Formats: sequence, structure tokens, C-alpha cells
Amino acid sequence: MSLEPDTGPKFVGPGSTLTIAEFITGVQDSDIPDKIVHQAKRTLINLMAVSLAAAFDEPSAILARRIEAEGSAPGATVIGRGLRTSPASAALLNGYLAHLYDYDDTHFPTVLHPSAPVWPAVLALAEQRGLSGRETLTAFVLGAEVACRVATSVHPWHYDQGWHITGTAGAFGAAAGAGKVLGLTAAQMVHALGVAGTQASGVREAFGSHTKALHPAKAASNGLQAALLAQDGFTGPEQIIEGRRGFWAVLSPGGHSKPALLEGLGQRWELERNGLKPYANGVVSHPIQDAIISLRNIHGITPDQVSSITARVHPLVLELMNRPAPTTGLEAKFSFQHCAAAALVDGAGHPAQFTDERVNDPIIAMVRSKVSASADPSIEEDEVSVTLTLGGGRTVETRVEHATGSPSNPMTDAALEDKFSALASAILPREQAEGLLNAVWTLDEAAGLSALIGLMVRPEEAGRS
Amino acid sequence: MSLEPDTGPKFVGPGSTLTIAEFITGVQDSDIPDKIVHQAKRTLINLMAVSLAAAFDEPSAILARRIEAEGSAPGATVIGRGLRTSPASAALLNGYLAHLYDYDDTHFPTVLHPSAPVWPAVLALAEQRGLSGRETLTAFVLGAEVACRVATSVHPWHYDQGWHITGTAGAFGAAAGAGKVLGLTAAQMVHALGVAGTQASGVREAFGSHTKALHPAKAASNGLQAALLAQDGFTGPEQIIEGRRGFWAVLSPGGHSKPALLEGLGQRWELERNGLKPYANGVVSHPIQDAIISLRNIHGITPDQVSSITARVHPLVLELMNRPAPTTGLEAKFSFQHCAAAALVDGAGHPAQFTDERVNDPIIAMVRSKVSASADPSIEEDEVSVTLTLGGGRTVETRVEHATGSPSNPMTDAALEDKFSALASAILPREQAEGLLNAVWTLDEAAGLSALIGLMVRPEEAGRS
Repeated sequence: MSLEPDTGPKFVGPGSTLTIAEFITGVQDSDIPDKIVHQAKRTLINLMAVSLAAAFDEPSAILARRIEAEGSAPGATVIGRGLRTSPASAALLNGYLAHLYDYDDTHFPTVLHPSAPVWPAVLALAEQRGLSGRETLTAFVLGAEVACRVATSVHPWHYDQGWHITGTAGAFGAAAGAGKVLGLTAAQMVHALGVAGTQASGVREAFGSHTKALHPAKAASNGLQAALLAQDGFTGPEQIIEGRRGFWAVLSPGGHSKPALLEGLGQRWELERNGLKPYANGVVSHPIQDAIISLRNIHGITPDQVSSITARVHPLVLELMNRPAPTTGLEAKFSFQHCAAAALVDGAGHPAQFTDERVNDPIIAMVRSKVSASADPSIEEDEVSVTLTLGGGRTVETRVEHATGSPSNPMTDAALEDKFSALASAILPREQAEGLLNAVWTLDEAAGLSALIGLMVRPEEAGRS
Repeated sequence: MSLEPDTGPKFVGPGSTLTIAEFITGVQDSDIPDKIVHQAKRTLINLMAVSLAAAFDEPSAILARRIEAEGSAPGATVIGRGLRTSPASAALLNGYLAHLYDYDDTHFPTVLHPSAPVWPAVLALAEQRGLSGRETLTAFVLGAEVACRVATSVHPWHYDQGWHITGTAGAFGAAAGAGKVLGLTAAQMVHALGVAGTQASGVREAFGSHTKALHPAKAASNGLQAALLAQDGFTGPEQIIEGRRGFWAVLSPGGHSKPALLEGLGQRWELERNGLKPYANGVVSHPIQDAIISLRNIHGITPDQVSSITARVHPLVLELMNRPAPTTGLEAKFSFQHCAAAALVDGAGHPAQFTDERVNDPIIAMVRSKVSASADPSIEEDEVSVTLTLGGGRTVETRVEHATGSPSNPMTDAALEDKFSALASAILPREQAEGLLNAVWTLDEAAGLSALIGLMVRPEEAGRS
């Protein structure tokens, strides 16, 4: 018979969780620098784009039917689909949509995707509670800050052990953002983080299944519920991060860093280390795609002109993405050959280039068969050299030093708008998509979210609940 | 920039998850021995008792209000409160009630509490889907089997690392039980286990807060939702237990046992190693309580007669439960002095003996001040020797070899009925409590659950939704 109550010493030092909670509750809108507000808007534009694109996919529809069957009272809105449901369920489904395509933002130091768990929790409660645009942006910035700092504090041990860091650290971020929307006290925030943090979950074994995107979805929903419970007086552990059997000890036994969690809080912002992806596939082939799209556009190259595409790449490209003949969209996302072929044929790497249909397109397949790569340890991960051999033996070549979306070469606002348009206009009428884009760019001036919420729903779905 | 897609080898051997799934789906009602069906009924009687007792407590009320705010369509019923809500929300709240008092059943080898995560998931879906009593019992037996086997396969490494095993392994059991109710195919069951298993969570840091009972609550609700999603075609990882980044690898890096998971499936049943608690407090002081209640009843001892109570105990009693002057009910549950005093004064150790009011009762406090214990390494954990010194120096003493509720001395059905009556009759009219008890004892003969469900609701709450 074992002993279940844990009556040993519970505290291991000054309270990191309390420090985080006091930081969240103490920040005012005016404490957030303009450039960080701008980054927050960029993440929301990207989130809207990728969520709209995923809104009507099969696994999204399954999850939506599950939520509809719950029949909850309407309180918040699902992107694209327009379903109005409880904030917790809206956060669940929006968190799912945001990550389904693996096309959301990425915190470079940790590969955490901050928007997918945090934005849906913040948006759902902010919609229900009638927050202003600026207050909503502040809540997201703080939620993202907490998610990224918790992630950084356990990186790389936690991810290496097999945790999907977006699901685990994301739950802390969702609770922080939701708690900020609710205006929790610091003590309530400690409990919100505790209730959410003990639910941190998601193992990397789920990658490749419908369930990967359920991790940030549950983080968003659980974090939101944790904040609501804490506001009502529900208690959680008071030292969920640093406690003897808390997040660090149990989910990152390999190590953790307290300075990474706490140093420079409010002086520097993790959204500065957050990037957006120009392509919807595995990141190591992004330099190849940049190079080929550049050559294609400069030289006006068409598929029938190409006799071979060769690349000198970082060794991980071959290790992780060497799939010469993918047959499904999912496989193609991890095929550098397909990514290269789609870049040449379509000039893009959006979800539209990774449908099963596109993967089996004869022209794409023809070009794909001409792609090869050699590993070169002197090449960096965000670097590549590509040579296209054309009919008659003519060659064109280029070198990409830092791929688009890497820390040294962020996507420009214009490129982000192009990505948004490509994805959103497949779901929304063009004018509405432009209106939505504008609503995000001006969100800090909006008295409320109603315009934004109205614009993110496909017209034929509007008015559902 | 790190690499997120996991494209390495995903399978580590023959599929343990598939074996479990095929076992669950293959078992017929007639494969479950009568004695195991009887054990299942005992767990349900115990669950009803402890859930009724907890149904109107403050944290239960907070969670109930949260669920009411969701406003879900009625599909299943909450014990005691009568709230009718979605099966997922009913499973959540019933899972919470079942564990709030730490007075639920215990799987001896692992300290997993199988009923709290499994019964609520099974009951909610069985109510909604109109299963027979016998089918419902079978689904619970299988869910409990899976929870206990998953737990045993990672014991003791997983719990020692800080995981609350009832929340983690419990999620697998809830998915298994819910999946059996739904009649999933083996392939669907693999995915249900995958979707649920990647959500396994709950760290022991949460012990002592309202959140401890949220672990089995979430396990119940997440497991139920996983089964529903899998039935609709939602995919999870196919090797959640044994995969390279699955449950064993990530949540039990210290070790795991495949034989413990799989050996003797369908030949022996884990419910044979599941026990019920006679007292609502930390288990190491149960022998003391047995001894004192026995002396009290045999000799008719009253509080004013006692001048001292001394016990020779296993060393863990002093290590874990030495709290001479507790001031709250929670502290008192981990005070052997209070447990001994309440045993003498009230002849019991139910939740009624651990209210703040009872802890501060002057007679209890007076007796508590006369309790002492000495550690004796030759005494087993379920053993004690107790001496009461009465006025005039007369002493009475007794030795308990195996405390009630330990593997060698299970609670009798009669003692379980007494426990049920003590707890249920505080919430339900006596006749209704008797009817509920009878409904469980005859559950295998019931064509449906409606009688049981109707009887588990306090009359003044009936008809709520």
C-alpha cells in the first residue's frame, strides 16, 4: 500500500510563479512598445489566414460537430465557420484551426507556436466580455510572453524528452492571456496558472495524426477554463512551475532555467523572437523554396524548361525530408523534392500546394523527379545553393543566405499580406478578406471586437449558433 | 531554428496499444466473472457514497457553476446535484465529486483510483445511449482494467517522478470504458486511446488544492471525448503507449514494464487488487482507527474515561501524519492524532469527522491532546498496537494485524453498506438511499440506467438542467 498524500516540503525557493503572476497583472497597455503591438497584429493576421484555410477541413469538421453536439450557449465565435458556442469550446476549435496546417508562427528559440494556444483563449473571452482592441492585444502579448518564457525555461530538455511544447507551455500562456482579459488579481493568476499548468500535456508521438493540433486547442481551452475557475475561487497549486512536483521537476527532469523564465521581464519581449512561415511545410526546406521561387520569377522559368534541380543543403534536409515520391499531402510536407517542385510550378508553398490532388499532379510529379540534393556540413540550416539546369544545358543558380521567416530575415508585412490574401481569399470574398486584414491592422484603435469577429466568418455561415 | 516534424522511426515493436484495443473490443459480458461484476458494483456503491457527500461542497459548486454557464444540451446527469448537461461535462463534474474527498477506491499496487476517471465516463455515455446495466458494468470493468494495467506498467517510476497516476493512466481507462460503451472497432479504440493518452496530465504539486480532484475529472471527460472523436474518424497516434515519443517514453523515462501491461489479459482482473477505504484520511493511520473503534465498541469507552492513547506504529505514520494540533479539515486528514481522537469520540472517520468545525470541537481536541505514537520498524504498514489508559490507570489494548481495506482484509459488503448509508443519508432521504443501494446491487439485471440515475439525485434538485 503506497502513500498518496504529498506532505513533504512543497516550496523550493522564491516563487517564480508568483513573480510571473504579478508581472501579468501589473502590465498596462501603455507598457507594451509599439513595435510589439505591431508584432501581435502580425501574428493575428497570420492566425486568421491559416485558421480560415483550415476551417472546413475534415478533422476540423469532426471537432466542430462534436462541439455542436454539446449544444453550448453562444458566447464566442469560431473563425470561418461562424459557429457561436461557449468561450471554452470556441477556444478549443480556434486553437485547432490555428495549428492544423503547421503554418502558424514559431518562437525561434523553442519551436513553440505561441498564437495557437494563446490567441483563441484571449479572443473568445475578449469577445464575450467586450474588451477593446488594445486591451485584447495586451492580453495576447502577455499570454505569448508567458508561453514563450515557460518554454524557454525548459528548452531543450523538455522537447527532447518528447513533449509537444506548444501544448504544454501553451497552457500557461493561455491561462495568462485569459486571466489578463478577466482582470484577475495576482493571487487568482497564480491559481489560474496552477490549474492550467497541471493539465499541460501533449506528446510528440501524436505528430502526423489529427491530434497534433488538438494539443494547442486543449491548451487554449484548458487555460481559459482555468482562468475562469480561478476567478471564482477555485484553487490550484501555488508553485506550479517551480514546486517540488511541479512543471519543471516532472515535465523537464533533464533541466530547467529560472533566468530564462524571469530575466528581463517587461524589458524585452519574446514576440521579437517570433517568426512567421512563408511555406506550409517542414522548415528545413524553406531555403530551397526561396531560391527556386526567386530563380523562377527572375528568369521566368516554366516547368517544361527544367531538366534538373540540384541543391547543396544542410545535412538535416536529407535526414528529415528526403521523400522522392510522396503520395499524400502530409508526406509531401516532409518531402524537399515536392517542396522544390511546387515552388517551381506554382511559385508558392501554401496549403494548396500540399493537397493530395496537387501531390499527384503529373506536372508536379515530373518536376519532382528531377530534384536532387547533396548534404554539405558547411551550409547553415537557413542557407542553400540551388542550380537549375534548363534545356540545352543552360544553368541558372542562386544562393540563399537566410531563408525568409528565419530570425535574420523575417517576412515583411507585404509578404505577410500576400500570404493572408492567398489563404483568406479561398474562403472569404476578396473584399471581406481585405476588410479583415484592415480590421487587424487597426485593432488597437477599435473600441471592441465586433467588426473583427463579424469579418472572420464566411458569409454563408454567418448567424449560426 | 529547430526541427519540429518527427520523422524518425515511430514504432518500437509489436503494438501494445493495438493488443489492448483488441482486448477491449473483444470482451463479451459473459467473459467477466461474477466475482468481478460484484467488485464493480462495490466500486459503484462506494462512488455514489463519496460523490453524494461531495456534491454540494464549495469547489464542486464552483465547477458546477462553470458547467452551468456553458449551457450545454442535457445528455447525462450529475450525481446528487441532478444537473443535466452534456456527457462530457457530466463526466467532468462526476469525476470531480468522486475524488474530492480522497475517499474513493484504490488499486493497491499503484495507488491509482480507478473509479473516479472511469465510472463517470462510462455512466454518462451509457445513460445517453441507453445501455443495459450489465453492458454498463462490463464497460466499467474494462476501463478499470486498462487504467490499472497502464498504471502498473509504469509503476513506481511514473508516480515517483511526480505524476498523479489517477489523472494520467485514468485517461486511458476512461477512453477504454467510453469506447466500449460506444462499441468502437479495435482500430477506433486505438485512436481513442491515442487521443486520450496524449492528454494524460496531472502533477502531484496540485495535491492539497481544489485541483487534485480535477485530474480524474479531466481524465474522465477527455477520455469520453476521445472515444466520441475516434468514432467520428478523428485520428490519434497509433502507438500512444509504446511509441518512441509515447506515454512510456515521455511520462515514465525511469522505466516501464510491458508484461505488466499485457500478461494475463482477460485471465485475471485488476479489480481483484482494488480496495475500498473505511476512513476518509491518509491510509497509514487506518490501523490505529480500526484498533480504537474496536476497543471503543467492545468496552463501551467514552471520551471522558480516557487519560492516554498510545500506539506502536509503522515509522511512516510519524513521518507523514504527525500533526498534533491541526486547525483545518484538510490538515486533520493528515493528523494521526485527530484520526485517533475522532475514532474514539465518533467511532468513525468519514468526511463528517474532517470538517473544520469537527476539528475544532473541544472534546475532540481534548482527546487529541492525549494521543501519542512511537515508531517501531518491526510493525507493518497495515498493522498497529494500541493501548488506551483509562481513569484509575486501567488499560485496554489491542493489536490490528491487517487494517480494514488492506489487501488482506477487504471491507465487507456490510461495512461498505454502512459507509454508503452514513454518507448518502446526509444528502438523500433514507428510503431513497436504500433504493439507490439496491439499484446498484441489482444493476446487472436492469434493462437500463434510468432507475439508478433517478435515485442518485437529491429530490429538491430533480428536474434541473
